[in-house]
Amino acid sequence: MADPNRLVHSLIGRKPESTALIEQALTHRSAGPVNNERLEFLGDALLGFVIAEVLLQRFPDASEGDLTRRRATLVNREALARIARTLALGDYLRLDPGALRSGGHARDSVLSDALEALIGAIYLDQGFACAKQMILRVFTDALAEVANRDAGKDPKTRLQEWLQARRRSLPEYEVIAITGEQHAQRFQVRCRLADEERSCIGDGSSRRRAEQQSAETMLTQLIEQEEA
Amino acid sequence: MADPNRLVHSLIGRKPESTALIEQALTHRSAGPVNNERLEFLGDALLGFVIAEVLLQRFPDASEGDLTRRRATLVNREALARIARTLALGDYLRLDPGALRSGGHARDSVLSDALEALIGAIYLDQGFACAKQMILRVFTDALAEVANRDAGKDPKTRLQEWLQARRRSLPEYEVIAITGEQHAQRFQVRCRLADEERSCIGDGSSRRRAEQQSAETMLTQLIEQEEA
Repeated sequence: MADPNRLVHSLIGRKPESTALIEQALTHRSAGPVNNERLEFLGDALLGFVIAEVLLQRFPDASEGDLTRRRATLVNREALARIARTLALGDYLRLDPGALRSGGHARDSVLSDALEALIGAIYLDQGFACAKQMILRVFTDALAEVANRDAGKDPKTRLQEWLQARRRSLPEYEVIAITGEQHAQRFQVRCRLADEERSCIGDGSSRRRAEQQSAETMLTQLIEQEEA
Repeated sequence: MADPNRLVHSLIGRKPESTALIEQALTHRSAGPVNNERLEFLGDALLGFVIAEVLLQRFPDASEGDLTRRRATLVNREALARIARTLALGDYLRLDPGALRSGGHARDSVLSDALEALIGAIYLDQGFACAKQMILRVFTDALAEVANRDAGKDPKTRLQEWLQARRRSLPEYEVIAITGEQHAQRFQVRCRLADEERSCIGDGSSRRRAEQQSAETMLTQLIEQEEA
Protein backbone atom coordinates (compact mmCIF):
# COMPACT_ATOMS: atom_id res chain seq x y z
CA MET A 1 0.00 0.00 0.00
CA ALA A 2 1.35 3.43 -0.96
CA ASP A 3 1.96 6.13 1.68
CA PRO A 4 -1.33 7.92 2.46
CA ASN A 5 0.52 11.06 3.58
CA ARG A 6 1.86 11.42 0.05
CA LEU A 7 -1.67 11.20 -1.34
CA VAL A 8 -2.89 13.93 1.03
CA HIS A 9 0.13 16.09 0.21
CA SER A 10 -0.68 15.86 -3.48
CA LEU A 11 -4.25 17.00 -2.75
CA ILE A 12 -3.81 19.81 -0.22
CA GLY A 13 -0.11 20.70 -0.43
CA ARG A 14 0.74 19.48 3.08
CA LYS A 15 0.69 16.40 5.25
CA PRO A 16 -2.36 15.66 7.42
CA GLU A 17 -2.32 16.31 11.17
CA SER A 18 -3.61 12.79 11.75
CA THR A 19 -2.29 10.03 9.52
CA ALA A 20 -4.56 7.62 11.41
CA LEU A 21 -7.65 9.48 10.26
CA ILE A 22 -6.52 9.36 6.62
CA GLU A 23 -5.74 5.67 6.95
CA GLN A 24 -9.22 5.10 8.32
CA ALA A 25 -10.69 6.88 5.29
CA LEU A 26 -8.78 4.48 3.06
CA THR A 27 -9.87 1.36 4.94
CA HIS A 28 -12.69 -0.63 3.39
CA ARG A 29 -15.16 -2.27 5.75
CA SER A 30 -13.83 -5.68 4.71
CA ALA A 31 -10.56 -4.83 6.50
CA GLY A 32 -12.00 -4.44 9.99
CA PRO A 33 -14.31 -2.59 12.36
CA VAL A 34 -12.39 0.72 12.16
CA ASN A 35 -13.22 1.50 8.54
CA ASN A 36 -14.33 4.35 6.32
CA GLU A 37 -18.13 4.01 6.49
CA ARG A 38 -18.77 6.82 8.98
CA LEU A 39 -16.32 9.15 7.28
CA GLU A 40 -18.03 8.41 3.99
CA PHE A 41 -21.34 9.57 5.52
CA LEU A 42 -19.70 12.89 6.43
CA GLY A 43 -17.80 13.32 3.16
CA ASP A 44 -20.85 12.54 1.06
CA ALA A 45 -22.78 15.32 2.79
CA LEU A 46 -19.92 17.83 2.52
CA LEU A 47 -19.42 17.04 -1.14
CA GLY A 48 -23.12 17.55 -1.86
CA PHE A 49 -22.99 20.94 -0.20
CA VAL A 50 -19.79 22.21 -1.82
CA ILE A 51 -20.98 21.16 -5.27
CA ALA A 52 -24.34 22.82 -4.57
CA GLU A 53 -22.59 26.10 -3.82
CA VAL A 54 -20.34 26.03 -6.87
CA LEU A 55 -23.28 25.21 -9.16
CA LEU A 56 -25.31 28.04 -7.63
CA GLN A 57 -22.49 30.45 -8.51
CA ARG A 58 -21.78 29.11 -11.97
CA PHE A 59 -25.39 28.88 -13.10
CA PRO A 60 -27.00 32.08 -11.84
CA ASP A 61 -30.16 31.48 -13.89
CA ALA A 62 -30.61 27.76 -13.30
CA SER A 63 -33.74 26.57 -11.50
CA GLU A 64 -33.56 24.45 -8.39
CA GLY A 65 -34.50 21.40 -10.48
CA ASP A 66 -31.75 22.13 -12.96
CA LEU A 67 -29.17 22.53 -10.17
CA THR A 68 -30.29 19.23 -8.63
CA ARG A 69 -29.85 17.46 -11.96
CA ARG A 70 -26.45 18.95 -12.62
CA ARG A 71 -25.30 17.90 -9.18
CA ALA A 72 -26.56 14.35 -9.78
CA THR A 73 -24.43 14.26 -12.95
CA LEU A 74 -21.36 15.30 -11.00
CA VAL A 75 -21.83 13.39 -7.77
CA ASN A 76 -22.62 9.74 -8.41
CA ARG A 77 -20.80 6.46 -8.10
CA GLU A 78 -19.34 6.35 -11.61
CA ALA A 79 -18.23 9.99 -11.64
CA LEU A 80 -16.58 9.68 -8.22
CA ALA A 81 -14.86 6.44 -9.18
CA ARG A 82 -13.47 8.17 -12.28
CA ILE A 83 -11.97 10.93 -10.13
CA ALA A 84 -10.66 8.36 -7.63
CA ARG A 85 -8.84 6.61 -10.49
CA THR A 86 -7.14 9.81 -11.64
CA LEU A 87 -5.81 10.06 -8.05
CA ALA A 88 -4.72 6.38 -8.11
CA LEU A 89 -6.76 6.00 -4.92
CA GLY A 90 -6.86 2.23 -5.40
CA ASP A 91 -3.13 2.05 -4.61
CA TYR A 92 -3.77 3.46 -1.14
CA LEU A 93 -6.73 1.33 -0.10
CA ARG A 94 -6.77 -1.23 2.69
CA LEU A 95 -9.02 -4.17 1.98
CA ASP A 96 -9.40 -7.67 3.30
CA PRO A 97 -6.95 -9.90 1.35
CA GLY A 98 -9.87 -11.82 -0.15
CA ALA A 99 -11.57 -8.64 -1.33
CA LEU A 100 -8.25 -7.41 -2.70
CA ARG A 101 -7.60 -10.59 -4.66
CA SER A 102 -11.03 -10.36 -6.26
CA GLY A 103 -10.21 -6.85 -7.46
CA GLY A 104 -12.16 -4.92 -4.81
CA HIS A 105 -9.74 -1.98 -4.93
CA ALA A 106 -10.78 -1.35 -8.54
CA ARG A 107 -14.55 -1.48 -8.04
CA ASP A 108 -16.54 1.71 -8.59
CA SER A 109 -18.39 1.45 -5.28
CA VAL A 110 -15.22 0.91 -3.24
CA LEU A 111 -13.38 3.77 -4.95
CA SER A 112 -16.32 6.16 -4.75
CA ASP A 113 -16.89 5.44 -1.05
CA ALA A 114 -13.19 5.90 -0.29
CA LEU A 115 -13.07 9.26 -2.09
CA GLU A 116 -16.04 10.50 -0.05
CA ALA A 117 -14.45 9.21 3.15
CA LEU A 118 -11.19 10.96 2.26
CA ILE A 119 -13.10 14.22 1.82
CA GLY A 120 -14.69 13.71 5.25
CA ALA A 121 -11.29 12.97 6.82
CA ILE A 122 -9.64 16.02 5.28
CA TYR A 123 -12.49 18.16 6.62
CA LEU A 124 -12.03 16.80 10.16
CA ASP A 125 -8.25 17.11 9.88
CA GLN A 126 -7.95 20.52 8.21
CA GLY A 127 -11.28 22.31 8.41
CA PHE A 128 -13.89 23.51 5.98
CA ALA A 129 -11.87 25.87 3.76
CA CYS A 130 -9.19 23.30 3.02
CA ALA A 131 -11.65 20.48 2.31
CA LYS A 132 -13.63 22.77 0.00
CA GLN A 133 -10.47 23.70 -1.93
CA MET A 134 -9.59 20.06 -2.28
CA ILE A 135 -13.05 19.22 -3.62
CA LEU A 136 -12.94 22.07 -6.14
CA ARG A 137 -9.51 20.93 -7.25
CA VAL A 138 -10.39 17.31 -7.90
CA PHE A 139 -13.66 18.34 -9.55
CA THR A 140 -12.16 20.95 -11.88
CA ASP A 141 -12.48 18.88 -15.06
CA ALA A 142 -15.89 17.45 -14.20
CA LEU A 143 -17.22 20.95 -13.46
CA ALA A 144 -15.93 22.31 -16.75
CA GLU A 145 -17.61 19.43 -18.54
CA VAL A 146 -21.00 19.89 -16.89
CA ALA A 147 -20.88 23.58 -17.75
CA ASN A 148 -20.36 22.90 -21.44
CA ARG A 149 -22.22 19.69 -22.00
CA ASP A 150 -25.83 20.67 -22.10
CA ALA A 151 -25.47 24.42 -22.47
CA GLY A 152 -28.61 25.64 -24.17
CA LYS A 153 -30.45 22.35 -24.18
CA ASP A 154 -34.05 22.56 -23.08
CA PRO A 155 -35.72 20.08 -20.68
CA LYS A 156 -37.59 18.17 -23.45
CA THR A 157 -34.31 17.59 -25.30
CA ARG A 158 -32.54 16.53 -22.14
CA LEU A 159 -35.35 14.15 -21.17
CA GLN A 160 -35.31 12.64 -24.66
CA GLU A 161 -31.53 12.13 -24.55
CA TRP A 162 -31.72 10.65 -21.08
CA LEU A 163 -34.32 8.11 -22.20
CA GLN A 164 -32.53 7.30 -25.46
CA ALA A 165 -29.29 6.65 -23.59
CA ARG A 166 -31.20 3.97 -21.64
CA ARG A 167 -32.90 2.56 -24.76
CA ARG A 168 -36.30 3.53 -23.48
CA SER A 169 -39.30 4.71 -25.44
CA LEU A 170 -39.93 8.44 -25.78
CA PRO A 171 -42.39 10.43 -23.67
CA GLU A 172 -45.83 11.47 -24.82
CA TYR A 173 -47.15 14.98 -24.15
CA GLU A 174 -50.85 15.73 -23.94
CA VAL A 175 -52.70 18.95 -23.14
CA ILE A 176 -55.11 18.08 -20.35
CA ALA A 177 -56.52 21.52 -19.48
CA ILE A 178 -56.61 25.09 -20.76
CA THR A 179 -57.88 27.60 -18.24
CA GLY A 180 -58.19 31.37 -17.88
CA GLU A 181 -59.37 34.19 -20.12
CA GLN A 182 -58.20 34.38 -23.74
CA HIS A 183 -55.44 36.90 -22.92
CA ALA A 184 -54.17 35.01 -19.86
CA GLN A 185 -54.53 31.34 -20.68
CA ARG A 186 -52.80 28.64 -18.66
CA PHE A 187 -51.98 25.26 -20.14
CA GLN A 188 -51.65 21.99 -18.28
CA VAL A 189 -49.73 19.24 -20.02
CA ARG A 190 -49.22 15.64 -19.00
CA CYS A 191 -45.88 14.03 -19.81
CA ARG A 192 -46.24 10.26 -19.81
CA LEU A 193 -43.78 7.37 -20.04
CA ALA A 194 -45.67 4.41 -21.43
CA ASP A 195 -43.05 1.86 -20.43
CA GLU A 196 -43.35 2.40 -16.69
CA GLU A 197 -46.78 4.00 -16.30
CA ARG A 198 -45.30 7.16 -14.90
CA SER A 199 -46.66 10.60 -15.62
CA CYS A 200 -46.36 14.11 -14.35
CA ILE A 201 -48.02 17.44 -15.00
CA GLY A 202 -46.52 20.70 -16.20
CA ASP A 203 -48.13 24.10 -16.23
CA GLY A 204 -47.37 27.26 -18.20
CA SER A 205 -48.60 30.24 -20.18
CA SER A 206 -48.15 28.33 -23.45
CA ARG A 207 -48.39 24.73 -24.52
CA ARG A 208 -44.64 24.71 -25.14
CA ARG A 209 -43.81 26.09 -21.69
CA ALA A 210 -46.12 23.58 -20.02
CA GLU A 211 -44.48 20.75 -21.97
CA GLN A 212 -41.00 21.91 -20.98
CA GLN A 213 -42.03 22.12 -17.36
CA SER A 214 -43.55 18.63 -17.38
CA ALA A 215 -40.35 17.29 -19.01
CA GLU A 216 -38.22 18.97 -16.36
CA THR A 217 -40.27 17.46 -13.53
CA MET A 218 -40.14 14.03 -15.16
CA LEU A 219 -36.38 14.17 -15.64
CA THR A 220 -35.84 15.23 -12.03
CA GLN A 221 -37.92 12.29 -10.80
CA LEU A 222 -36.12 9.81 -13.04
CA ILE A 223 -32.69 11.00 -11.96
CA GLU A 224 -33.64 10.95 -8.29
CA GLN A 225 -35.00 7.44 -8.66
CA GLU A 226 -31.86 6.25 -10.43
CA GLU A 227 -29.69 7.79 -7.70
CA ALA A 228 -31.72 6.30 -4.84
CA MET B 1 -44.49 41.53 7.25
CA ALA B 2 -42.11 41.74 10.20
CA ASP B 3 -38.56 43.10 9.76
CA PRO B 4 -36.28 40.32 8.44
CA ASN B 5 -33.21 42.01 9.98
CA ARG B 6 -34.75 41.46 13.39
CA LEU B 7 -35.20 37.76 12.63
CA VAL B 8 -31.56 37.42 11.58
CA HIS B 9 -30.41 39.35 14.65
CA SER B 10 -32.29 36.93 16.88
CA LEU B 11 -30.54 34.01 15.17
CA ILE B 12 -26.93 35.15 14.82
CA GLY B 13 -26.68 38.15 17.16
CA ARG B 14 -26.15 40.72 14.40
CA LYS B 15 -27.77 42.15 11.33
CA PRO B 16 -27.05 40.63 7.92
CA GLU B 17 -24.69 42.31 5.45
CA SER B 18 -27.34 41.96 2.75
CA THR B 19 -30.95 42.49 3.74
CA ALA B 20 -31.91 41.77 0.11
CA LEU B 21 -30.48 38.24 0.37
CA ILE B 22 -32.45 37.55 3.55
CA GLU B 23 -35.61 38.93 1.94
CA GLN B 24 -35.06 36.62 -1.01
CA ALA B 25 -34.80 33.66 1.37
CA LEU B 26 -38.17 34.63 2.82
CA THR B 27 -39.87 35.03 -0.57
CA HIS B 28 -42.03 32.13 -1.68
CA ARG B 29 -42.06 31.32 -5.39
CA SER B 30 -45.68 32.50 -5.59
CA ALA B 31 -44.44 36.06 -4.97
CA GLY B 32 -42.25 36.37 -8.04
CA PRO B 33 -39.27 35.21 -10.05
CA VAL B 34 -36.68 36.28 -7.44
CA ASN B 35 -37.64 33.76 -4.79
CA ASN B 36 -36.11 31.35 -2.32
CA GLU B 37 -35.90 28.17 -4.42
CA ARG B 38 -32.19 28.37 -5.27
CA LEU B 39 -31.24 29.36 -1.72
CA GLU B 40 -33.28 26.42 -0.46
CA PHE B 41 -31.16 24.10 -2.63
CA LEU B 42 -28.02 25.46 -0.96
CA GLY B 43 -29.43 25.52 2.57
CA ASP B 44 -30.77 21.99 2.31
CA ALA B 45 -27.30 20.71 1.40
CA LEU B 46 -25.58 22.71 4.15
CA LEU B 47 -28.07 21.54 6.74
CA GLY B 48 -27.56 17.91 5.73
CA PHE B 49 -23.82 18.32 6.14
CA VAL B 50 -23.86 20.14 9.49
CA ILE B 51 -26.29 17.63 10.98
CA ALA B 52 -24.12 14.80 9.62
CA GLU B 53 -21.11 16.19 11.47
CA VAL B 54 -22.88 16.72 14.76
CA LEU B 55 -24.37 13.21 14.67
CA LEU B 56 -20.94 11.76 13.89
CA GLN B 57 -19.58 13.45 17.02
CA ARG B 58 -22.48 12.65 19.30
CA PHE B 59 -22.82 9.01 18.29
CA PRO B 60 -19.25 7.72 18.09
CA ASP B 61 -20.39 4.11 17.83
CA ALA B 62 -23.31 4.52 15.44
CA SER B 63 -23.11 2.83 12.06
CA GLU B 64 -23.51 4.75 8.82
CA GLY B 65 -27.06 3.38 8.51
CA ASP B 66 -27.92 4.50 12.01
CA LEU B 67 -26.53 8.00 11.35
CA THR B 68 -28.55 8.22 8.13
CA ARG B 69 -31.72 7.28 9.99
CA ARG B 70 -31.12 9.74 12.80
CA ARG B 71 -30.53 12.51 10.30
CA ALA B 72 -33.76 11.65 8.48
CA THR B 73 -35.60 12.03 11.80
CA LEU B 74 -34.09 15.48 12.30
CA VAL B 75 -34.16 16.87 8.79
CA ASN B 76 -37.56 16.42 7.17
CA ARG B 77 -40.46 18.65 6.27
CA GLU B 78 -42.40 18.28 9.54
CA ALA B 79 -39.37 18.69 11.79
CA LEU B 80 -38.18 21.78 9.89
CA ALA B 81 -41.66 23.31 9.91
CA ARG B 82 -41.78 22.80 13.69
CA ILE B 83 -38.52 24.71 14.10
CA ALA B 84 -39.71 27.41 11.68
CA ARG B 85 -42.80 27.91 13.86
CA THR B 86 -40.75 28.39 17.01
CA LEU B 87 -38.96 31.19 15.11
CA ALA B 88 -42.31 32.64 13.96
CA LEU B 89 -40.90 32.41 10.43
CA GLY B 90 -44.40 32.66 8.96
CA ASP B 91 -44.58 36.32 10.07
CA TYR B 92 -41.61 37.20 7.86
CA LEU B 93 -42.65 35.40 4.66
CA ARG B 94 -43.53 37.06 1.38
CA LEU B 95 -46.19 35.20 -0.56
CA ASP B 96 -48.56 36.01 -3.35
CA PRO B 97 -51.70 37.56 -1.76
CA GLY B 98 -53.78 34.61 -2.94
CA ALA B 99 -51.39 32.08 -1.41
CA LEU B 100 -51.32 34.15 1.78
CA ARG B 101 -55.11 34.28 2.07
CA SER B 102 -55.31 30.50 1.71
CA GLY B 103 -52.91 30.13 4.64
CA GLY B 104 -49.75 29.40 2.65
CA HIS B 105 -47.50 31.00 5.27
CA ALA B 106 -48.59 28.31 7.75
CA ARG B 107 -48.04 25.28 5.49
CA ASP B 108 -45.32 22.83 6.45
CA SER B 109 -43.75 22.81 3.00
CA VAL B 110 -43.59 26.60 2.74
CA LEU B 111 -42.11 26.97 6.23
CA SER B 112 -39.63 24.15 5.80
CA ASP B 113 -38.40 25.50 2.44
CA ALA B 114 -38.05 29.00 3.86
CA LEU B 115 -36.01 27.77 6.83
CA GLU B 116 -33.62 25.96 4.48
CA ALA B 117 -33.39 29.04 2.26
CA LEU B 118 -32.64 31.20 5.30
CA ILE B 119 -29.81 28.85 6.25
CA GLY B 120 -28.43 29.15 2.70
CA ALA B 121 -28.70 32.95 2.81
CA ILE B 122 -26.96 33.22 6.18
CA TYR B 123 -24.15 31.05 4.83
CA LEU B 124 -23.69 33.30 1.78
CA ASP B 125 -23.97 36.42 3.93
CA GLN B 126 -21.83 35.40 6.91
CA GLY B 127 -19.82 32.32 6.00
CA PHE B 128 -19.65 28.74 7.14
CA ALA B 129 -18.87 29.11 10.85
CA CYS B 130 -21.76 31.48 11.48
CA ALA B 131 -24.28 29.41 9.51
CA LYS B 132 -23.17 26.28 11.35
CA GLN B 133 -23.64 27.99 14.73
CA MET B 134 -27.08 29.14 13.70
CA ILE B 135 -28.06 25.61 12.66
CA LEU B 136 -26.80 24.09 15.92
CA ARG B 137 -28.70 26.73 17.84
CA VAL B 138 -32.08 26.19 16.19
CA PHE B 139 -31.60 22.41 16.33
CA THR B 140 -30.61 22.26 20.03
CA ASP B 141 -33.89 20.78 21.25
CA ALA B 142 -34.35 18.43 18.31
CA LEU B 143 -30.80 17.11 18.76
CA ALA B 144 -31.33 16.51 22.47
CA GLU B 145 -34.50 14.60 21.65
CA VAL B 146 -32.93 12.36 19.02
CA ALA B 147 -30.13 11.53 21.45
CA ASN B 148 -32.54 10.38 24.15
CA ARG B 149 -35.39 8.91 22.18
CA ASP B 150 -34.14 5.56 21.09
CA ALA B 151 -31.10 5.29 23.31
CA GLY B 152 -30.40 1.64 23.82
CA LYS B 153 -32.96 0.32 21.37
CA ASP B 154 -31.70 -2.38 19.08
CA PRO B 155 -32.47 -2.54 15.32
CA LYS B 156 -35.13 -5.28 15.66
CA THR B 157 -37.02 -3.17 18.20
CA ARG B 158 -36.73 -0.06 16.05
CA LEU B 159 -37.89 -1.92 12.93
CA GLN B 160 -40.86 -3.33 14.85
CA GLU B 161 -41.84 0.10 16.16
CA TRP B 162 -41.46 1.66 12.71
CA LEU B 163 -43.77 -0.97 11.19
CA GLN B 164 -46.30 -0.77 14.02
CA ALA B 165 -46.49 3.01 13.69
CA ARG B 166 -47.58 2.41 10.09
CA ARG B 167 -50.02 -0.38 11.03
CA ARG B 168 -48.03 -2.92 9.04
CA SER B 169 -47.48 -6.56 9.82
CA LEU B 170 -44.30 -7.59 11.63
CA PRO B 171 -41.20 -8.99 9.95
CA GLU B 172 -40.30 -12.68 9.85
CA TYR B 173 -36.76 -13.82 10.49
CA GLU B 174 -35.41 -17.10 9.13
CA VAL B 175 -31.96 -18.65 9.28
CA ILE B 176 -31.01 -19.47 5.70
CA ALA B 177 -27.41 -20.61 6.15
CA ILE B 178 -24.91 -21.58 8.84
CA THR B 179 -21.33 -21.81 7.62
CA GLY B 180 -17.85 -22.25 9.09
CA GLU B 181 -16.33 -24.59 11.65
CA GLN B 182 -18.04 -25.18 15.00
CA HIS B 183 -15.88 -22.60 16.81
CA ALA B 184 -16.28 -19.92 14.12
CA GLN B 185 -19.79 -20.26 12.78
CA ARG B 186 -21.43 -17.58 10.67
CA PHE B 187 -25.20 -17.21 10.46
CA GLN B 188 -27.18 -15.80 7.58
CA VAL B 189 -30.69 -14.63 8.36
CA ARG B 190 -33.40 -13.42 6.04
CA CYS B 191 -35.70 -10.67 7.30
CA ARG B 192 -38.90 -10.66 5.29
CA LEU B 193 -41.90 -8.32 5.09
CA ALA B 194 -44.81 -10.37 3.86
CA ASP B 195 -46.97 -7.36 3.00
CA GLU B 196 -44.69 -5.99 0.29
CA GLU B 197 -42.59 -9.01 -0.68
CA ARG B 198 -39.41 -7.33 0.46
CA SER B 199 -36.56 -9.16 2.11
CA CYS B 200 -32.95 -8.64 3.01
CA ILE B 201 -30.13 -10.69 4.43
CA GLY B 202 -28.10 -10.18 7.58
CA ASP B 203 -24.93 -11.94 8.58
CA GLY B 204 -23.23 -12.41 11.95
CA SER B 205 -21.42 -14.66 14.38
CA SER B 206 -24.69 -15.55 16.11
CA ARG B 207 -28.28 -15.94 15.05
CA ARG B 208 -29.17 -12.88 17.12
CA ARG B 209 -26.46 -10.70 15.54
CA ALA B 210 -27.49 -11.78 12.06
CA GLU B 211 -31.13 -10.96 12.84
CA GLN B 212 -30.19 -7.54 14.18
CA GLN B 213 -28.13 -6.81 11.07
CA SER B 214 -30.92 -7.87 8.73
CA ALA B 215 -33.37 -5.65 10.68
CA GLU B 216 -31.02 -2.69 10.42
CA THR B 217 -30.63 -3.11 6.66
CA MET B 218 -34.41 -3.45 6.26
CA LEU B 219 -35.11 -0.33 8.31
CA THR B 220 -32.56 1.69 6.36
CA GLN B 221 -34.18 0.65 3.08
CA LEU B 222 -37.68 1.44 4.32
CA ILE B 223 -36.68 4.88 5.58
CA GLU B 224 -34.79 5.72 2.40
CA GLN B 225 -37.79 4.68 0.35
CA GLU B 226 -40.15 6.75 2.47
CA GLU B 227 -37.85 9.78 2.19
CA ALA B 228 -37.45 9.46 -1.61
